[in-house]
Amino acid sequence: MKLSDVGELSLLKTIRRKFAVKSKYVIVSIGDDTAVIKPSGRNLLATTDMMVEGIHFDLNLITPYQLGFKLVSVNVSDIYAMGGRPQYLLLDIAMNRNTEKSFVDIFFDGIHDAMKLYGVSLIGGDISSSRKDMVIAATLIGDAKKHIKRSGAKPGDRIYVTGNLGDSACGLEILKRLTPESKQTVKSEKLKMKNETIKNLFLTLNSQLLTLNWSMVKPLLRRHLMPEARNPEKFIRYATSMIDLSDGLFIDLSRLCDESRVGAKIFMERIPVSSRMRTTSSMLGLDAMKLACSGGEDYELLFTASPTSPIPSLLRRGLGEIKTTHIGDIVKSVRKIIDKNGREKKFSASGYQHFENQR
Amino acid sequence: MKLSDVGELSLLKTIRRKFAVKSKYVIVSIGDDTAVIKPSGRNLLATTDMMVEGIHFDLNLITPYQLGFKLVSVNVSDIYAMGGRPQYLLLDIAMNRNTEKSFVDIFFDGIHDAMKLYGVSLIGGDISSSRKDMVIAATLIGDAKKHIKRSGAKPGDRIYVTGNLGDSACGLEILKRLTPESKQTVKSEKLKMKNETIKNLFLTLNSQLLTLNWSMVKPLLRRHLMPEARNPEKFIRYATSMIDLSDGLFIDLSRLCDESRVGAKIFMERIPVSSRMRTTSSMLGLDAMKLACSGGEDYELLFTASPTSPIPSLLRRGLGEIKTTHIGDIVKSVRKIIDKNGREKKFSASGYQHFENQR
Repeated sequence: MKLSDVGELSLLKTIRRKFAVKSKYVIVSIGDDTAVIKPSGRNLLATTDMMVEGIHFDLNLITPYQLGFKLVSVNVSDIYAMGGRPQYLLLDIAMNRNTEKSFVDIFFDGIHDAMKLYGVSLIGGDISSSRKDMVIAATLIGDAKKHIKRSGAKPGDRIYVTGNLGDSACGLEILKRLTPESKQTVKSEKLKMKNETIKNLFLTLNSQLLTLNWSMVKPLLRRHLMPEARNPEKFIRYATSMIDLSDGLFIDLSRLCDESRVGAKIFMERIPVSSRMRTTSSMLGLDAMKLACSGGEDYELLFTASPTSPIPSLLRRGLGEIKTTHIGDIVKSVRKIIDKNGREKKFSASGYQHFENQR
Repeated sequence: MKLSDVGELSLLKTIRRKFAVKSKYVIVSIGDDTAVIKPSGRNLLATTDMMVEGIHFDLNLITPYQLGFKLVSVNVSDIYAMGGRPQYLLLDIAMNRNTEKSFVDIFFDGIHDAMKLYGVSLIGGDISSSRKDMVIAATLIGDAKKHIKRSGAKPGDRIYVTGNLGDSACGLEILKRLTPESKQTVKSEKLKMKNETIKNLFLTLNSQLLTLNWSMVKPLLRRHLMPEARNPEKFIRYATSMIDLSDGLFIDLSRLCDESRVGAKIFMERIPVSSRMRTTSSMLGLDAMKLACSGGEDYELLFTASPTSPIPSLLRRGLGEIKTTHIGDIVKSVRKIIDKNGREKKFSASGYQHFENQR
């Protein structure tokens, strides 16, 4: 059944039922002119992110479940990067009228599950038809006792990142090269990526067929297709500045440096790269460090903390479940990356830019 | 110059400069992971509305200035309809990379001027490229001392609407029928519709050329192209329920009745219709009452008030600058429209629905 057979009103009813809000802070939810929320007394955070078909995602590569999940995650990542608590979501969705109702249902399953994971309530939205491409946007409202800006880094502060960098970018490079059959395998492979019956994926590389082991590449694909945002609660009290890595380490670190009016020195061999990413990118003939530094869509957190903060000892004792790595230090003004032989190179804000000619 | 020559970062810099926020409540504005707002202590309102090229607007008919203005107005209309004060705006914009930079500048002029009119600050957003169509969405945050829901109407309450209905729908019908030359005239006719050098517009109707007087149709076009939202402050204390008319009187009144679990009787001859709309729709061979009842995009307010409220006497003394009309009464369950001869007809939720086959 297509959306043109279902109609907007009936679709809205389904959504209203699926996302019924139980929070005592939500006085009015979906179904009036606006939502009404009881104030928490804390400062309010608000962010918005949009995803456009053909630009941010390719429906041949991502399932509707993953797409919905990712839309929520990328917004939550911004609230976390500010040191906040994600709370209320508003959705804008434009879809072709020939979209299958089942596609929409599964898309909302992904949104629903991500919202549950992060403790977020849906309080409003707008649904529209579109002539061709699907466009989705979410605005997320949250609050914070103490917010962490990009501008608080001081020379001498240490620079940390969570997780591994480049996994997501490497996942995308794999997806792009999959054979049509393997694309189908990945897409049909249960939307939540829990099916373990797949053994191998096949890629086309320089007209040759390449075989990749599923268990090796699955975490890379997953990091790209349905990233989980990193909650900084374990280290937030010590962070002097923070940003989430959405456009790539170099561009996002440059932003933090711009706002803090400082420089940074980072050590190439300290940049956390998973061995599966290193192996896979080498098989694909790609530069692992380039993916890690400029690939984008990591949705890891980069933060700074004073050298006297207890973070190093916290790290030794294992900082919760999130791997965290000291990759360099804030300095007065230069922006350099240093390789294992001590050679220094300047880095600049290179990463994805919309509208640019390079892509 | 096209956006592809300008690039995202340079565009963001321009926007950040243009929309610099001075409010003492805005602790962090555009340029960090999220905005940070000091709480007012009142309940928080939030709403979102999106506009899609080819569905909500046609760039051959609307100027970028008007489009920007309208995007803000339709969101403000929702906050006003809840009895709230509009405050903080987040924007999502997807545009083709071949879009002219001047188009974008003028679009932001429209957004800027509307924000100024309503006292709103821009606190965040996301800009992306799109493959073809332009898609814009805005989320508006506000607050309210006392919010007015759709669900408060009681049998016996009087039903009021602001302004005239159908002007916007009639304006759209005119625009659709303009000759290519007159389309150009309207579009070049200074973006803010302040140029008064135009004398006539020419329409094609059943292969015949029809001449319309500019001063007669201008308010109709203006109501469609750049509506102003109605501030209910003058009557808000007396409203028992309220909704803004975006999809048409019948559908929006039905929504209010659904939420209040009541019926309504409205009197056809009381529905406020401008004489210019009546004349023009008759020249176009259109049913003025149909435009007024189901045309949509009025962005007027419909509200109910107790029969003992002082609204009737306020109306006699002139209710601020907003014309307000008593069009009928809330009843227990029937939903009827009564013509001047006393004939009753049921009305139902007919109006624009996305994805439906009828359009």
